[in-house]
Amino acid sequence: MSHRITTISREFGSGGRTVGKLAARQLGLPCYDRELIGRIARESGFAADYVRNTEEDAPGFLASALSSRAFGPTNEDQLWEAQRRVILELAEQGPCVIVGRCADYILRDKADCLTAFIHASPAFRAERIVKVYGQREQTPEQRLREKDKRRAAYHRFYTDMKWGRADNYHISMDSGVLGIERCARLLAGLY
Amino acid sequence: MSHRITTISREFGSGGRTVGKLAARQLGLPCYDRELIGRIARESGFAADYVRNTEEDAPGFLASALSSRAFGPTNEDQLWEAQRRVILELAEQGPCVIVGRCADYILRDKADCLTAFIHASPAFRAERIVKVYGQREQTPEQRLREKDKRRAAYHRFYTDMKWGRADNYHISMDSGVLGIERCARLLAGLY
Repeated sequence: MSHRITTISREFGSGGRTVGKLAARQLGLPCYDRELIGRIARESGFAADYVRNTEEDAPGFLASALSSRAFGPTNEDQLWEAQRRVILELAEQGPCVIVGRCADYILRDKADCLTAFIHASPAFRAERIVKVYGQREQTPEQRLREKDKRRAAYHRFYTDMKWGRADNYHISMDSGVLGIERCARLLAGLY
Repeated sequence: MSHRITTISREFGSGGRTVGKLAARQLGLPCYDRELIGRIARESGFAADYVRNTEEDAPGFLASALSSRAFGPTNEDQLWEAQRRVILELAEQGPCVIVGRCADYILRDKADCLTAFIHASPAFRAERIVKVYGQREQTPEQRLREKDKRRAAYHRFYTDMKWGRADNYHISMDSGVLGIERCARLLAGLY
């Protein structure tokens, strides 16, 4: 594999997904984000909703991931394996942008990757999630705190990397300060 | 104060100082790095060598910084205060680039700053410190480990920020992967 892949990890609400889409459009490359879910569902046999909820909402993720593996791999382990296969396959197919799903870690020794992290202040993200996803029962701050915690735990568990450290990535950008469009332009310029 | 200041924090050996100099040259701005030492020395009354060694080598920093303040401020506290005054004054004078010395933290609510962090892999930095600073008795890996630990402790103590976290900065770049010159160009482009 010698294709150039751009991977984007992002804090919930930072607009990292939009950064990926805009950068991919500028580069004329496919961007895999929600598309990944269907592929992973087909590969694993799990329902798309179930796949969508891991990494993102999965209230049961931690309990299940940390439970005993004495009786074989957990659902999450099977899902991780399917995710790994799908991402490796996409990287084989050609240059692309992949958002989330630990693609940076999965491709770390397998493909020529540029790895990016998009983050923003809690205030910026709180305002943005209400705009993008609407109001929920929980306050935006509670939703952020919970998602941040889950994402950090998920990453830590499967990749052994400390979520949010700059040295995990080639470039990290604050989308709240720099702007989502400027982050995308910078990223496309690095390709 | 409404000047645009670029602050650069950097891992030892990452070339962050060179990034700052190159970016400042492209922007036609002054870059304060070693120049800071003389100013802080004059402001504090401490010898320039002593000032140089804090944040960087100071073997006694932790012991002294963590020692009792019951008898008044420690040398390090006085140095920190002088450093704060010098950096605030520079920010008043006009746009510039400031490397190191917690300028991002000192100016956080005082000036319009772009805050950058330059990091690189231990392998890249180990090779570079031998090239730039020459061989020492310790291996380059030992020197890096020690400096990294001291810098993290210093930051943690004076700024309460966790060293190396992406969300401390507007942009973080891996100079080993992106290249020192490209980091400088990106930074100048963001001004």
